[in-house]
Amino acid sequence: MYTLGELADRLDLALSGDAQRHITGLAALPEAGAGDLAFIADRKYLQQLARTRAGAVILHPRFAEQCPVDYLTCELPYLAFARASQLFDNSPRQAPGVHPGATVSPDAQLDASVSIGPHAVVEPGAVIAPGVVIGAGAYLGHNSRLGEGTRVFPSVVIYHDVHLGRNCVVHSQAVLGADGFGFARAERGWEKICQLGGVRIGHGVEIGAGTTVDRGTLGHTVIEDGVIIDNQVQVAHNCRIGENTAIAGCTGLAGSTVIGANCTLAGGVGVVGHVEICDNVHVTGMSMVTRSITEPGSYSSGTPMSRTRDWKRNAVRFSQLDAIHRRLAAIEQQPD
Amino acid sequence: MYTLGELADRLDLALSGDAQRHITGLAALPEAGAGDLAFIADRKYLQQLARTRAGAVILHPRFAEQCPVDYLTCELPYLAFARASQLFDNSPRQAPGVHPGATVSPDAQLDASVSIGPHAVVEPGAVIAPGVVIGAGAYLGHNSRLGEGTRVFPSVVIYHDVHLGRNCVVHSQAVLGADGFGFARAERGWEKICQLGGVRIGHGVEIGAGTTVDRGTLGHTVIEDGVIIDNQVQVAHNCRIGENTAIAGCTGLAGSTVIGANCTLAGGVGVVGHVEICDNVHVTGMSMVTRSITEPGSYSSGTPMSRTRDWKRNAVRFSQLDAIHRRLAAIEQQPD
Amino acid sequence: MYTLGELADRLDLALSGDAQRHITGLAALPEAGAGDLAFIADRKYLQQLARTRAGAVILHPRFAEQCPVDYLTCELPYLAFARASQLFDNSPRQAPGVHPGATVSPDAQLDASVSIGPHAVVEPGAVIAPGVVIGAGAYLGHNSRLGEGTRVFPSVVIYHDVHLGRNCVVHSQAVLGADGFGFARAERGWEKICQLGGVRIGHGVEIGAGTTVDRGTLGHTVIEDGVIIDNQVQVAHNCRIGENTAIAGCTGLAGSTVIGANCTLAGGVGVVGHVEICDNVHVTGMSMVTRSITEPGSYSSGTPMSRTRDWKRNAVRFSQLDAIHRRLAAIEQQPD
Repeated sequence: MYTLGELADRLDLALSGDAQRHITGLAALPEAGAGDLAFIADRKYLQQLARTRAGAVILHPRFAEQCPVDYLTCELPYLAFARASQLFDNSPRQAPGVHPGATVSPDAQLDASVSIGPHAVVEPGAVIAPGVVIGAGAYLGHNSRLGEGTRVFPSVVIYHDVHLGRNCVVHSQAVLGADGFGFARAERGWEKICQLGGVRIGHGVEIGAGTTVDRGTLGHTVIEDGVIIDNQVQVAHNCRIGENTAIAGCTGLAGSTVIGANCTLAGGVGVVGHVEICDNVHVTGMSMVTRSITEPGSYSSGTPMSRTRDWKRNAVRFSQLDAIHRRLAAIEQQPD
Repeated sequence: MYTLGELADRLDLALSGDAQRHITGLAALPEAGAGDLAFIADRKYLQQLARTRAGAVILHPRFAEQCPVDYLTCELPYLAFARASQLFDNSPRQAPGVHPGATVSPDAQLDASVSIGPHAVVEPGAVIAPGVVIGAGAYLGHNSRLGEGTRVFPSVVIYHDVHLGRNCVVHSQAVLGADGFGFARAERGWEKICQLGGVRIGHGVEIGAGTTVDRGTLGHTVIEDGVIIDNQVQVAHNCRIGENTAIAGCTGLAGSTVIGANCTLAGGVGVVGHVEICDNVHVTGMSMVTRSITEPGSYSSGTPMSRTRDWKRNAVRFSQLDAIHRRLAAIEQQPD
Repeated sequence: MYTLGELADRLDLALSGDAQRHITGLAALPEAGAGDLAFIADRKYLQQLARTRAGAVILHPRFAEQCPVDYLTCELPYLAFARASQLFDNSPRQAPGVHPGATVSPDAQLDASVSIGPHAVVEPGAVIAPGVVIGAGAYLGHNSRLGEGTRVFPSVVIYHDVHLGRNCVVHSQAVLGADGFGFARAERGWEKICQLGGVRIGHGVEIGAGTTVDRGTLGHTVIEDGVIIDNQVQVAHNCRIGENTAIAGCTGLAGSTVIGANCTLAGGVGVVGHVEICDNVHVTGMSMVTRSITEPGSYSSGTPMSRTRDWKRNAVRFSQLDAIHRRLAAIEQQPD
């Protein structure tokens, strides 16, 4: 619990209202009660603001007049809300120490401050920095490394030779360092290409539940500082993802793809192998990136949703598009 | 093993044939032998019916004349087959009791009838109702709850503050309650928005292998009674899925999506965030739902499959569609 | 470490250069140093070849003249590189024997040579052949079988009645044998169809991280010899995948799909249920296979990527395609 004054202080916000008001939690504008702090970050919620019963609201000064309750102002209210959420974080903390049910190699290096949950496994040569938390049943392979303050949730699997920097978060069922999909055609069938590289992940990277990041074939798969990756994303061998890029759920990157810094890939995007996307590119949902992108901006593919019966008629015509084009050209060339 | 008479009784079907016939299993029409019960639920399998060697067949009375063997009739033969499958279910049952290799907090509440497998973890404050089965290596977080008869398969991870109702099934590697993908842009990079809500799942919900359901940011992610979700589906923070809706594999729902009751989403569908889909909507495979749907019916997007060489020609023309339209309009406006 | 002469011998390559040269590893042409073996398999890397500092290069004889260093020639240099990668594989090997922290049923059959990691579980009736490696925390269900030399990585879940042949590899978080998505519409909601079949997987099959292969409803889901499957692929109940077919990441196959031998499905492909794809078919990335394919060749769907602002204009016209077609036809039928 905080007073409104304490929150203004800690979040560096300008307070208008009762500094002694007790705030016990965060809530959305329509649900917030007298003990809650709410926020508004978009003008489309102004009607919700007008009716809110929140104890206080974080907002931009330009909305202050329309706020019926106490408020805290700043230039970036959504960012302030993010920081407020960290103050009210009530998620359970795993007890420090190595759980007696864990299996930790004597040849691993562990700082005394780490927490390792029951049934977790740490292999020889692993290096675990101060403040690291490894959840129940997680696996850390040979010679892999977790930087200070990194948190690995239950049942994550990290193969050998995978390094994560400081303050990373890896959610359950993620797999870091499984073999890339590398095979050569043999006289009959496929010959496996052993994946001899590792994975290198920077600082402050978040990796969602069920996401897979394959190890490199030769050389490493690389994820730079500040990258955030949602659930069920597939990052193939030898990809490189630039600083602060965000990748939403169900996106797949094929092998050796290079993505620049500060990009945003929406959900369900696919990127073919061996292409490069420059910095500051946005790709809209379920688009397929089939070639390199060399200029910042927003890119898309796909077709719009419609009633299935209408869609079917139009979809048939898609298969005739080239013919339609040629018929049109023929008419254009007719003498008047 | 049942006699045909017993099956007719238990499944409430009308029997035509030998009530003493022994039925030892279920099989498809072409493979079924004298001890097997088969079914036909679609007229396209009538030829298979005519040739079947099954001991008996479940069918609609209108197909009875074409059945060369004993049969059991009802109005909904596929539903009767489903119920028959439950009689012949031979899947192994986990022994009751807490396996000595499990790690169960003394501060969790467990009914005496529960079964907890080896290497499973149950955290403080968890509440586990009668008849619950938790598979090997599964994880149940702080204050999470499993209703009567719910079954959690090996290696499922359920974070804290996730409630499931009665008779749910959660398949392996599913993750319930991982953090939603919530970040605010900071001056540089991203600031994490702690995900303070939980997950609330109703009764009779089935969740497939590798499916992820994120916890809410503020307030809960909600899945209502009777929802069935296939493998590798992603349900983002603060989604709400209405009663008896079915979601096929590899579908992704972005944040705060609301889906009505009795909808069916085919495989690989994507739904953008903050849209609402009303009751009784069907979305065909791999479609992208980019806006709210307010009328029941079937919706689609995408283009039809063709030979790659044909597809390439047409795909190029897609990029010229607006120009084609304008050229056509110009011709239409020419005086005759 | 090998000498170049030893490598030529073991890989059956023709050596041009110093047979006593020491090779300590593999590297790509641009990064390779004097102790590294590199390869070139495509003419587009000839410039990298010209500048390489590798100790030696595997290449086709037609590129030999352009190689500035020692080389090893053969007809299929990429295949030779794959075989070389196996010589330099340095991935850690799990110690043989049953780890004391594993939970292995006395009613399972284990060859003395198997390796079972900590916290793994083996249920009654399981049969584990010589040389099998089961990783930490993996689960092998009742009556399931692993053939000689098969390797199961940490945290894989294999349900009951799933058979794998010899020399398979299953990566972490894969799930083999979870219930297929089978439900019949009931008077209200859905009735579960118990999935009574199993999974049958041939020899030399590789299954990627997070991939799910459901058990059959009646009869088995079947994956034939030599199939390779990447990460996060969904194989639904009663699919059959033919010999040596390759399936890239994030692809989904709906129920009862039959795929022939020697097919290649690129990433993110979807295949609807109950269709058949013949042998030697290639499907390009993110395509949707909506009907059976009866002739070998390459197939595609989707639209090309463009700038979002251009895409929007063209996408609107997609919804008018049938009308455009009709307008064009009307013009064509006008008398001149």
